Amino acid sequence: MIVNSSSLLLKEIAEKTSQAARKLGGLSTDDRNQAIEAIAQALETASADIIKANELDCELAEKEGISKPLYNRLKLGETKLKATIKGVRDVVNLADPLGHISIHRELDEGLILKRVSCPLGVLGIIFEARPEALIQITSLAIKSGNAVILKGGKEAINSCQTLVKIIREALKNTKVDPDTVQLLTTREEIRNLLVLDEYIDLIIPRGSNEFVRFIQQNTNIPVLGHADGICHLYIDKQADLETATSITVDSKTQYPAACNAIETLLIHQDIAAEFLPKIAEALNSHQVKLKGDKLTQNYLNIEAATEEDWKTEYSDLILSIKVVDSLEVAINHINTYGSKHTDAIVTEDRNSAETFMNQVDAAGVYHNCSTRFADGFRYGFGAEVGISTQKMPPRGPVGLEGLVTYKYQVTGKGHIAATYSGDNAKAFTHKDV
Amino acid sequence: MIVNSSSLLLKEIAEKTSQAARKLGGLSTDDRNQAIEAIAQALETASADIIKANELDCELAEKEGISKPLYNRLKLGETKLKATIKGVRDVVNLADPLGHISIHRELDEGLILKRVSCPLGVLGIIFEARPEALIQITSLAIKSGNAVILKGGKEAINSCQTLVKIIREALKNTKVDPDTVQLLTTREEIRNLLVLDEYIDLIIPRGSNEFVRFIQQNTNIPVLGHADGICHLYIDKQADLETATSITVDSKTQYPAACNAIETLLIHQDIAAEFLPKIAEALNSHQVKLKGDKLTQNYLNIEAATEEDWKTEYSDLILSIKVVDSLEVAINHINTYGSKHTDAIVTEDRNSAETFMNQVDAAGVYHNCSTRFADGFRYGFGAEVGISTQKMPPRGPVGLEGLVTYKYQVTGKGHIAATYSGDNAKAFTHKDV
Repeated sequence: MIVNSSSLLLKEIAEKTSQAARKLGGLSTDDRNQAIEAIAQALETASADIIKANELDCELAEKEGISKPLYNRLKLGETKLKATIKGVRDVVNLADPLGHISIHRELDEGLILKRVSCPLGVLGIIFEARPEALIQITSLAIKSGNAVILKGGKEAINSCQTLVKIIREALKNTKVDPDTVQLLTTREEIRNLLVLDEYIDLIIPRGSNEFVRFIQQNTNIPVLGHADGICHLYIDKQADLETATSITVDSKTQYPAACNAIETLLIHQDIAAEFLPKIAEALNSHQVKLKGDKLTQNYLNIEAATEEDWKTEYSDLILSIKVVDSLEVAINHINTYGSKHTDAIVTEDRNSAETFMNQVDAAGVYHNCSTRFADGFRYGFGAEVGISTQKMPPRGPVGLEGLVTYKYQVTGKGHIAATYSGDNAKAFTHKDV
Repeated sequence: MIVNSSSLLLKEIAEKTSQAARKLGGLSTDDRNQAIEAIAQALETASADIIKANELDCELAEKEGISKPLYNRLKLGETKLKATIKGVRDVVNLADPLGHISIHRELDEGLILKRVSCPLGVLGIIFEARPEALIQITSLAIKSGNAVILKGGKEAINSCQTLVKIIREALKNTKVDPDTVQLLTTREEIRNLLVLDEYIDLIIPRGSNEFVRFIQQNTNIPVLGHADGICHLYIDKQADLETATSITVDSKTQYPAACNAIETLLIHQDIAAEFLPKIAEALNSHQVKLKGDKLTQNYLNIEAATEEDWKTEYSDLILSIKVVDSLEVAINHINTYGSKHTDAIVTEDRNSAETFMNQVDAAGVYHNCSTRFADGFRYGFGAEVGISTQKMPPRGPVGLEGLVTYKYQVTGKGHIAATYSGDNAKAFTHKDV
C-alpha cells in the first residue's frame, strides 16, 4: 500500500494494481458510483484527521521556507476540503465513459462488429504538492474503470498518506478492490515507474515544464500532458481595437501562471502605430512588463525581445511583442515557436480568421475570444484530467474520455474468413446497425 | 527529392515537407481528389516504365537469391499494377476524413466551440520491398491531407524511385505541392528520421517484428503499428466442437503468415479428451505441426511446448496447445502472453463469452468467429493503414481516421474569461448545437 519500494517491489505492486484494474473494468456503473460515494462519505467522516495531517505538512513546509503560492496549493483547510468532497459527488453524476458503442455494424448476416469504450487499465499519476488533486484524480480514475498509482509532491506526504489510507479503507466495503489505489512516496520510484510499460497504460504528469519533459523523454508509456504552454495572440490589421485590448488583457493577466495565458502578442504593422500605445497603457495598468522586437521598440520605450523570448513561457506578468507584416508571417511565427497549445486571432475579416484557424497547428485555434477558455470545465467536459499538446488524440483539454480506450468485439455464429476469399468469395454486407 | 542525405539534408527535406503539408491541409476535398486521380492517370500512362523498373529490381533480387515469397511481394506485373491503380481510384471515392465536427457546442451566447478533424501533418512511412504499398500509402496520405516521407525496402529501389518520380510529376499539374511526397533510399536515413519529432507527426513501420520494435523503442514520434501478433483461440467447455474445429482451422491455416492468425490454442480440460484427437486430425490434414503442454501430451503424441512457445509468433503452420482448467486461467494466459491484437472464444455460454470479451485485454475480442476477421477492409473501413496493438486509440485495424487528428476551434465576439470567474461569475450555457 504505502511503500518505500525497491524497483522489484514496485513491479509487484504494479502487477497487483493491474489485476485490481481488470476486476474494476468489469464492474457496473452503479458499483463504481457507489465506491465513489463511499469515498466521499469516508472523507467527510475523517475530515478532522485530514486537516490535521495537512497542518503537519504545512508546518514542515513553512519551516523549509515554502513560497506563498506553493503554500496556498499545499494547504487543505475545511472550505477547500468540503469543495473537493462536493467535487467527488459531482463525479458520481458524470455520464459513464465506459460501454459507449461508437461502431455497430453487421459484417455479414450473424457476424456483428461493435467498437466499445473500455478502461485503459492502470494510470500512473504524478502530481504537485496539492492534496485535493489526489482526491479528484482517484474519483475520476474509478469512474472510468482505471486503477491508479499516485505520487504526490513530497511536501504533501502526510496529507497523501492519510487520504490514501481513508480511501482504501472506504473501498473495503464496496465492490472496488482497495488495491485499485496505490501511493508511492519517494522520488526514486518515479524512475522505476517509467519502465513498467507492461503494467502502466498511461502516465499523467503534472508539474514544471522541465519535469513533464523529463517524463515524456524517459518512458515508452503514453504520456498525457504538456511541457510548455506558449500561447499567442495575433491582432490582425482588420481587428476591432477595443476587442483586441480587452482580449489581450484577459489572455495575459486573468491568471498569468496558467498554461493557457499568452506569452507573445503579434501585431499587424498597419495598426501598430495606433494599437501599441493603447495596449501598452492597458497592460501597464496591470503591471505587465513588456519586451518588444525592433519594430515594436520604434513605438514603445521597452526592453528588446530576443530569440529566447519567443521560446519562453514566462508564467508571469511579462509579455513579448512582435510586429509582423502579414497574417502569413504571424502564422509562421506561431508554428515555429508555439507549443501547439492555444493560439488566437482578433479580426473582423472572416477569411483571415479561417486561414488562421486552418493553418495554425495547435490544439486550440481561437477567433475573437480569450485563450483562457482552453479548459475542460469551460468546454463543458465536466472534468479535466489534463491538457495535451500532442498531435494525436486526445488533444487539448482532456476530460474523462482521455482515460478510456476501445475494443472491437466481433460476434459470429461460426463464421470463418475462408468464406470471404478465393474464387467464390462471399461479399460482406457492411451494414451499420 | 530523391536523396542520399546527410542528417542535415534530411532535416531540410522534412521542413520542406512540413510546409507542403500545411498547404495541403487547407485544400478542398475536390482538390485532393483531383490530385489522386491525376496520380492514377500518370501511373496508367507510365505503366511500361514502372514494369521495366520493377523488372530490373526483380532481376537483381534473383541474383541475390531472394526467397520466393519475398520475390512475389517485390514483383509488380501488369495485373497487380492495374489492380493497384484501381485501388487509387477507390481512395477518391472514400469519404473525406477531414472537416468532421465531433463536438459543436455553445459555451455561452455567441461563444461557439467546435471540435473538427484535421490532418496530422507529415507521415514517415517505412515499408517492405512491395512497390504497390508506396502507391496505396501515398493516395491515402493525400486523401487525409498529410504529406509523406517514404522509405521502401532496398530491393525495390528502382521501382520506388520511378513511382515517386511519376507521382511528383503528376502533382505538378494539381493544387498539391509535389514536395508532399518524398522518398528516402538509404537505411541510415531511417535513424535520422526517428529524431525529427519536430517535423514528423506519425511513423508507420511495416516489416518484421524486430524492425517494428526497434522503431517503437527508438523514437519519441508516435508509432502506428504492431511488433507481434500473438493471437489466441480458447475452446470453452460449452463449445460446439464442429464450430470449434472449423474456426481453429481457419484461424491457423487460412493465411498463417498474417498477424491475425492464431499461435496458441487453449482448450478447457472437460472437452480435451474429445476435442484434441478431432482437432489434431483436422490440423494434420493441413500440415500444421502441433506442440503441446503436459496435459495435451497425455492425449496427443506431439512435441512439448515450452515457455518460449507461448511467447512466439510462428507466422507459420505451427500451433502450440495448452489445456486449461477454467475460463479464468485461459484469460490469464492470454493477458500474460498475448500481444493485445486479437483473441477469440468458442462457446455456447453467453456469460463465459461476455466475461472473456470484458477481461481479455486486446484490440479485438471475438466470440464464435475466426481471428482472421481482424482487418480494416473486413471491418468495412474502406482502407487499412495499419493495425495497432497499443492501448490508446487508434487501436486495432486502423482506417483513414488513424491519419487525422482534431482541433478545437472557439469563436467569440470579444468574450473574455474574466466574465466567467469571481463573485459575479456568469454561468456557461454548454448547449450542444
